[in-house]
Amino acid sequence: MAIILASASPRRRELMKFITEDFTVKVSDVREITDPDLSPEETVKSLAVIKGEAVAGNCPGDTVISADTVVVLDGKILGKPKNEEDAFSMLCALSGRTHEVFTGVCIIHGGKKTVFAERTEVSFYSLSDEEIRTYIATGEPSDKAGAYGIQGKGCTLVKSINGDYNNVVGLPVSKLYRIMKESSAI
Amino acid sequence: MAIILASASPRRRELMKFITEDFTVKVSDVREITDPDLSPEETVKSLAVIKGEAVAGNCPGDTVISADTVVVLDGKILGKPKNEEDAFSMLCALSGRTHEVFTGVCIIHGGKKTVFAERTEVSFYSLSDEEIRTYIATGEPSDKAGAYGIQGKGCTLVKSINGDYNNVVGLPVSKLYRIMKESSAI
Repeated sequence: MAIILASASPRRRELMKFITEDFTVKVSDVREITDPDLSPEETVKSLAVIKGEAVAGNCPGDTVISADTVVVLDGKILGKPKNEEDAFSMLCALSGRTHEVFTGVCIIHGGKKTVFAERTEVSFYSLSDEEIRTYIATGEPSDKAGAYGIQGKGCTLVKSINGDYNNVVGLPVSKLYRIMKESSAI
Repeated sequence: MAIILASASPRRRELMKFITEDFTVKVSDVREITDPDLSPEETVKSLAVIKGEAVAGNCPGDTVISADTVVVLDGKILGKPKNEEDAFSMLCALSGRTHEVFTGVCIIHGGKKTVFAERTEVSFYSLSDEEIRTYIATGEPSDKAGAYGIQGKGCTLVKSINGDYNNVVGLPVSKLYRIMKESSAI
């Protein structure tokens, strides 16, 4: 009975170590298709289930953890920026405002599936164009949903958060730990 | 005109790198004496000033950054635990409740001193005695104010925060960055 993290994200791997050192990483390249009519919360839960089930099919009896994170402004999901101008538009939109980050988590353990989503509010300072350009030049936005990484230099953009910090990084460690304990997965 | 971080904390050093890579660390072993009648906010500001002035005296013309962080429950400052039983008492007191973390920062630059304090609320899950003992056994609480480290395994104890996350780690990076920009210190 192994614990498997079904995520390629190095950030999730680091966070998972706060729960247990005893896990392996397996990733499937399943197609991540969602219903555009779903709410952001339902979207991340649905994507976490798709990722988890794809790995669990090959690992019967193991515990599989999967997750998906999105950045949401005015009810709309911001993905990863396509290029620097796209990153600029996203950061302009987030500037001086509060947005939401949702991470959906799926735990497949002992023939049961537990799915939840955690929500954190993130408030940005008002950013000058120059500050946004300087941040984009660090290269950090390119592979990040919403074009920022709160665990990197992107922390200088953030005024405050309300909720679980690690949920913004990509894994709500504290709630996941509690659910895994309750279900005797750890 | 160098930038000097007047703190021995490896966590503050890591956070300072989000503002600039171009700084050195100098620490004075000044006695940290405060007036017990001061509020927690005034206490951290006063300690930051004491630490900063002690280093600035030997570095005229340089920019000196210093900081002090405290954990506050019911208006009372929780220091570092004296031993495991003390850590147990502190974590029992924090369990299921919301406390405050204040970091005071002093910036000495161009003959001027700028001092501010940042406040973050931290809410803990209700913790079982067994969970507290397991956490203490990791050794993490021993050198931490309030007997926990939010950037380590202590994150599993925390339900949510309200404010700047890095302020809890020990340096309100975002606000410090903004003040240093405004005063042309970076």
